[in-house]
Amino acid sequence: MDVNNMDLFLGIDGGGSKCKAIIVNQANEILGSGISGPANPLHGFNQATNSIIESTQLALKSACLDHISLSELTVGAGLAGVNLPSLFDQMNNWTHPFKHFFLAHDLCIANLGAHHSSQGAVIITGTGSCGFSSVGGDERLIGGHGFPQGDKASGAWFGLQACEQVLLSLDDLIPSSLMNKALLAQLSCESATDIVTVIAGKNATFYAQLANIVFDAAEQDDPIAINIIKDGVNYLALLAEKLLMDPEVRLSILGGLSTTLQPWLMASLSPALGQQIVQARSSPEFGAVLFARNTLASLTR
Amino acid sequence: MDVNNMDLFLGIDGGGSKCKAIIVNQANEILGSGISGPANPLHGFNQATNSIIESTQLALKSACLDHISLSELTVGAGLAGVNLPSLFDQMNNWTHPFKHFFLAHDLCIANLGAHHSSQGAVIITGTGSCGFSSVGGDERLIGGHGFPQGDKASGAWFGLQACEQVLLSLDDLIPSSLMNKALLAQLSCESATDIVTVIAGKNATFYAQLANIVFDAAEQDDPIAINIIKDGVNYLALLAEKLLMDPEVRLSILGGLSTTLQPWLMASLSPALGQQIVQARSSPEFGAVLFARNTLASLTR
Repeated sequence: MDVNNMDLFLGIDGGGSKCKAIIVNQANEILGSGISGPANPLHGFNQATNSIIESTQLALKSACLDHISLSELTVGAGLAGVNLPSLFDQMNNWTHPFKHFFLAHDLCIANLGAHHSSQGAVIITGTGSCGFSSVGGDERLIGGHGFPQGDKASGAWFGLQACEQVLLSLDDLIPSSLMNKALLAQLSCESATDIVTVIAGKNATFYAQLANIVFDAAEQDDPIAINIIKDGVNYLALLAEKLLMDPEVRLSILGGLSTTLQPWLMASLSPALGQQIVQARSSPEFGAVLFARNTLASLTR
Repeated sequence: MDVNNMDLFLGIDGGGSKCKAIIVNQANEILGSGISGPANPLHGFNQATNSIIESTQLALKSACLDHISLSELTVGAGLAGVNLPSLFDQMNNWTHPFKHFFLAHDLCIANLGAHHSSQGAVIITGTGSCGFSSVGGDERLIGGHGFPQGDKASGAWFGLQACEQVLLSLDDLIPSSLMNKALLAQLSCESATDIVTVIAGKNATFYAQLANIVFDAAEQDDPIAINIIKDGVNYLALLAEKLLMDPEVRLSILGGLSTTLQPWLMASLSPALGQQIVQARSSPEFGAVLFARNTLASLTR
C-alpha cells in the first residue's frame, strides 16, 4: 500500500462504553479501524486516554500500518463528556503521543460526519442520549446530562426502566410483563432480591446492556415495554422538534439504538418534521477525521 | 439514677443515611439517645458497624451512663439492607462488643414499634422507601429495591425527580418550574452543566437532601412539583392497598417524609382504607428494644 505518512489522519469517536478509531489517508479512504473500551473522561482520564491509544493501535494493526509511529498521526477526537469545560481542559492538556491532537465534543464530530458540513443536527442514542445542532454558527446542545438524572431514551435509561418495571411487577404492584422472565434470565437471577443484589451500584454501561429486554418484549406486544418506548420516544420527539425549528436544518439519528428507535420516532413526528430527518452520510469517527483536516487546514492557511 | 446494668437494653434503627440508638431500662423508660451516620451494610460493613458503635456511645453519654461497658448491653438492631441474606449473615456474624446482638430487618422493628405487636403494617419513606406487613405469621416486604431502580416516593427518588425535571426545563423541553431556581441555589450552580458536574455519581443520601425542593415548590402550587408528588403518592397508594388487603390490619406511615406525604396519601385512598391508617405508637428504635426483649425472653424461657 502506498502511504505517505505525512497524510495519515486518525478519527476517534470516544463514548461512555467504547472508543472507535479509524485511519484515513489523504484521499479520505479508510485504511483500518479499531474499537476499545470507554473513553468518556468523566469516568476517568486514564481510562479515556488508554482507550484512545488502544483503539489507535488496533486501527493501525488492522491497516497493516504497525510500523507507523503515533507521532506521525494527525488526530481528530470527539469525546463524550468534554462539554464540561474542566474535562475539555484536562483532555486538551493531555501530553499525547500524536503529531496533532484536535479535541471536540463527540456531538460536533458526529454532526460533521452525518452532514459533511458543520450545519445540521443529530440526535445520538446509544449508552447515553442527547441532541445537538449547529446552525449559522450557533451550536445547541440539548440533554446529555448523564445517568440516571438525564439521557432519557438512551440504552442506560431503557435498561433502568426495565429494572424498575420488572421490580414493580415482581412486587405485584403492576401487571406481569414479558420483561420479568427476560430480565431474570439475563441477570441469572431468581427473585427481585437477586436482581437488586446484581444491579446495586451499577453504571450506565451495565444498564445499557439491558435495553434489548425492552425492545424484545415490545416486539411481542408487551404493553409495559411499549409504554417505556413511547415515553422515551416522546422525549426524542421533543428534542427533534427543538432541533428542527429551522426548516432548512437536516437531522440524523445516530448511535446504537438509532435503527431501533428511528421508526418509532418517525411515527411520532409530523410529516413536515419527518422530511427533515436524513440518513447520516458518514460515521462520527469519519466526522472526527474531517474535523482534524479542517482544523489543520485552518492552522496552516 | 438507679440503674440495674443487667436490665439495660439498646435499640438501634440503622438506615441509609443515619443510625439512631436509644437506651431503655427494664421499665421501658428511654434514658438516652444518639444519632450517627449511615448503617445500611449494603453500603459498607465497616461503616454500618462503626455507626452502630458510635450511636451507642452517644446514647450512653446522653444518659450519663458512660461508665457502662458495651458488653453489658442487650441490643436489638433493625438495619436496612439485611433483607438480603448475604448482608444478614455478614452482620449477624459480626464479632460485636455487646452482651447480645439481635438482628432484624429495619421494617420488622419499625412495625413492632408502630403497633407494639408483630401484627400490622408500615410504609417507610425516608432516604429510601418500602412497605412491610406481618399478618398471622406471614411477612410481606414490598419495594425497598434501592436507588435509583426502586424506592419510589423516597427522599432520594424525589430529589432525583427534581434534578430530572429541572434539567429538562433548563433545556427548554418542558415549562419553567419554581424548582429550577431552588435547585440551582441549593447546589450553588449557575447552569445545567454545573448541576450535572455536582450530581455526577452521587448516592441516595445526596439526592434525598434535595427532596425539599419538590415539596417547597408544590406548596407554592408549582405544577411540575405537584405532578412529581402525585406520581410518588400513587405508588405509595398501591403499596398501601396491597398491605391493607386484610381489613383488620393497621398501617402506619413512618420515616422522614411521612409527615409531609401522609396528607397526600390519605387524599388518594378510599375512606375505608384511610381508616386503617394509624399513628405509630413508638419509634422504630423503640421497636428494636421490644424486639430485643422479646427475643431474650424467648431464649430464656
